[in-house]
Amino acid sequence: MLRLHDSQDSGNGYKVRLLLALLGLTYERVEVDILNGDSRTPGFLAMNPNGRIPVLELGPDGPLAESNAILWYLAEGTRFLPSHPLARARTLQWMFFEQYSHEPNIAVVRHWICHLGLDDARRAQLPARRAGGHAALAVMETHLATAPWFGGGAMTVADIALFAYTHVAGEGGFELAGYPGVTAWLERVAGQPGHCPMLPAPTGTVSPPAGG
Amino acid sequence: MLRLHDSQDSGNGYKVRLLLALLGLTYERVEVDILNGDSRTPGFLAMNPNGRIPVLELGPDGPLAESNAILWYLAEGTRFLPSHPLARARTLQWMFFEQYSHEPNIAVVRHWICHLGLDDARRAQLPARRAGGHAALAVMETHLATAPWFGGGAMTVADIALFAYTHVAGEGGFELAGYPGVTAWLERVAGQPGHCPMLPAPTGTVSPPAGG
Repeated sequence: MLRLHDSQDSGNGYKVRLLLALLGLTYERVEVDILNGDSRTPGFLAMNPNGRIPVLELGPDGPLAESNAILWYLAEGTRFLPSHPLARARTLQWMFFEQYSHEPNIAVVRHWICHLGLDDARRAQLPARRAGGHAALAVMETHLATAPWFGGGAMTVADIALFAYTHVAGEGGFELAGYPGVTAWLERVAGQPGHCPMLPAPTGTVSPPAGG
Repeated sequence: MLRLHDSQDSGNGYKVRLLLALLGLTYERVEVDILNGDSRTPGFLAMNPNGRIPVLELGPDGPLAESNAILWYLAEGTRFLPSHPLARARTLQWMFFEQYSHEPNIAVVRHWICHLGLDDARRAQLPARRAGGHAALAVMETHLATAPWFGGGAMTVADIALFAYTHVAGEGGFELAGYPGVTAWLERVAGQPGHCPMLPAPTGTVSPPAGG
């Protein structure tokens, strides 16, 4: 069985949970207390030397790290990953945008505000991170003026990757009211059959709902 | 013909140049003066609303952005992208590692030191970025103790993505002498037939060497 090492309040972990739910897959979920250093133990580092969740254990194929690589692996051959090379490349374009231009601003500021608090060093970086986050949201808004989804003609793993931290951007002080295209897109993603919320995140065996 | 919008001292741009050279492809190269704001003009933003190089124009298929998405697109069906799903996922794992954990530390510090200079804000962030860069190099060193390449049994686009800024890490003050596995891997990558250096980066039509 697939085993997901995850932290309940992590959008990177939630990406994987959400795709597993949309695909109706059963898996075992292990909660990792990252604030307590549990992603830095020798056992965890043996799975991912970079010491970050999520990690998906694939059974005999070993552990796979990096949320967006896990999404790609799980989505291959499903409706969440297009088959045309150009659509696949555009899907990846948005997933790399998410990790480079979106997550380090929107997710990091949220993590500071919700978990770590604002010390002097973080407070000094806040204006640049805030500007970077709004720039990323503006790029998304521009794209959504011309297309309903990121990466293809239907919802893809690029949408899942971008949804995870965008839908909780307000918790980091990023007001979404100025981005009507983004807000409408969030509703489209959340309305997909099989969608699961970020919280609560159950531990142990997670199965798709009966009749789902 | 493929047209690459690029900046000569950018490792992200060099990734694409290097793969094009290894594949023996002819392309047109356009130098973009990013320090002069030339990636922020209306014309450039129409190609990539995120205002970053590299952008590869694919002719009728339009522009593609994000260096690692471009690598993936160009490498599909070649020896630089494995066909097995697990090897493809591990290749992507390292490419996302590169954009999240490596580039924002090693490339950004190099850019500050070589181009922007160290103002107070950058100087305050330097210790954390320096530590992050060395942590990324240590993760690479750990991997290279067990495998000669990243992502597969042979050189892949993950190696190209990681080579670009690792081979100039010293310009950002990251001493590589403590990473013998990384140093040996850099030599393996640079020894591949068709390899091209980062500089000089010619403008106009770039063709593979005669007899190459």
